[in-house]
Amino acid sequence: MSWLNGQPCEGLSVHDRGLAYGDGLFETIRVVGGRARLLDRHLQRLTVGCQRLAIPVDTVELRNELTRFCQALGQGIAKLIVTRGTGQRGYAPPQPCQPQRVLLGSPLPAYPPRHAEAGVRLFPCITRLAEQPRLAGIKHLNRLEQVLARAEWHDPAFAEGLMRDMSGRVVEGVFSNLFLAVGGELRTASLTRCGVAGVMRAEIMARASKQGFAVAELDISYAELLQADEIFLCNSLYGIWPVTGLAERVWPVGPLTRKLQSVVADLLSDS
Amino acid sequence: MSWLNGQPCEGLSVHDRGLAYGDGLFETIRVVGGRARLLDRHLQRLTVGCQRLAIPVDTVELRNELTRFCQALGQGIAKLIVTRGTGQRGYAPPQPCQPQRVLLGSPLPAYPPRHAEAGVRLFPCITRLAEQPRLAGIKHLNRLEQVLARAEWHDPAFAEGLMRDMSGRVVEGVFSNLFLAVGGELRTASLTRCGVAGVMRAEIMARASKQGFAVAELDISYAELLQADEIFLCNSLYGIWPVTGLAERVWPVGPLTRKLQSVVADLLSDS
Repeated sequence: MSWLNGQPCEGLSVHDRGLAYGDGLFETIRVVGGRARLLDRHLQRLTVGCQRLAIPVDTVELRNELTRFCQALGQGIAKLIVTRGTGQRGYAPPQPCQPQRVLLGSPLPAYPPRHAEAGVRLFPCITRLAEQPRLAGIKHLNRLEQVLARAEWHDPAFAEGLMRDMSGRVVEGVFSNLFLAVGGELRTASLTRCGVAGVMRAEIMARASKQGFAVAELDISYAELLQADEIFLCNSLYGIWPVTGLAERVWPVGPLTRKLQSVVADLLSDS
Repeated sequence: MSWLNGQPCEGLSVHDRGLAYGDGLFETIRVVGGRARLLDRHLQRLTVGCQRLAIPVDTVELRNELTRFCQALGQGIAKLIVTRGTGQRGYAPPQPCQPQRVLLGSPLPAYPPRHAEAGVRLFPCITRLAEQPRLAGIKHLNRLEQVLARAEWHDPAFAEGLMRDMSGRVVEGVFSNLFLAVGGELRTASLTRCGVAGVMRAEIMARASKQGFAVAELDISYAELLQADEIFLCNSLYGIWPVTGLAERVWPVGPLTRKLQSVVADLLSDS
């Protein structure tokens, strides 16, 4: 199932700047019972991204269209792509522009349930994240670093890969955010230089705070990661995966990770 | 005029990874009298890019297709986009993949002739180039930094913008490479951390060497740029533009710049 600007469609103009320059943004949304989970957070992040790239988008129209699409999809993943639209040759953004909205439906991914139950091993990616504050945090269409990083391993023993920035700081997974538990406190990487500010990350931070846990966004070194009491990954499709292995280090699934899995369980339910 | 895989076509699949992740490469080629200028250099850079991204492409087929396209276009610009093709959701490159070839024709850009004759002013862009050695030099589809940089100025008094890297080194223009003349020697930025290795840059380096000039690729500071005897920009569409102004500094059009304009003049002729 695929829509372009609200209508079923399979193709996008070959002159679209989304193709030419990755000039746009996307969201990947879990859909259950015809409704988008964490819709407000997805639309909020998209809005921030559109502001950052100066892509004018009608969020009311977008919300309505997404709501209709999710009703038609029923269950699965709705991927929303917003591009700046077509333009003349050259990098200068056209004024005015006609942003394009692509909606793609697909089934929920078949992640093994043991990833959430028994935890996963992290592959230490060699590809580093470049530091670009102007693009940090938003979910834009320039994703070659993730493509290169994900191509580094084929062994299914690794469910995700760890990405560090050019200075060696721990940032995130290839398609997940990362949390550490240290002395009962939650820590996640500051995303001011690179990385994607995930909606599940934001939701976990909000719910953990409500539960009384201290939550900090800060720079995290590789040594600090290896010394953490617990590590877990998150994204809006699978929720929370405990990390039980990285390089030579092994962790049991920790109590804070289990607690937070239960705290967000409603977001992963099938009804 | 637009072709997809050798056939006239206006649309690309909304599932293409070129759109989803900028997972591909491009070339912008000057076409005169039905023939591509600097074709070997364009295909060579594309080949390097495909190797770097592990996109399998049949260069013999590509050359034949491009040759036919240029014959049909006659005069103008041929933009070639190669993507990894469609894939399942997720960053992992599909194995095998079916790369897609897009060819877009457009008229030659109407740059004012005085840019080459009297020189241009450079706008000092605030947007910096992130340092990512794995993507440096190749002309991939992740171009948001250029989009942001080009959006920084609207004043036509600036024909191009100067881009520095995160460490402040001078790298290139938004859509050009940059050369300095210092004591009769040519210098251009090393592109091992970021930047696009332009085909005109390569051609100028080769022809200047043949003419007996020393040519160096090295790191260039902003102070060194301001102290240079001459500065010029280049790309494969317009050739060479002398730089006559940047911030408070003013340069006359220098003799080495003029000499090199004559050395590459055949590439810009209309016949």
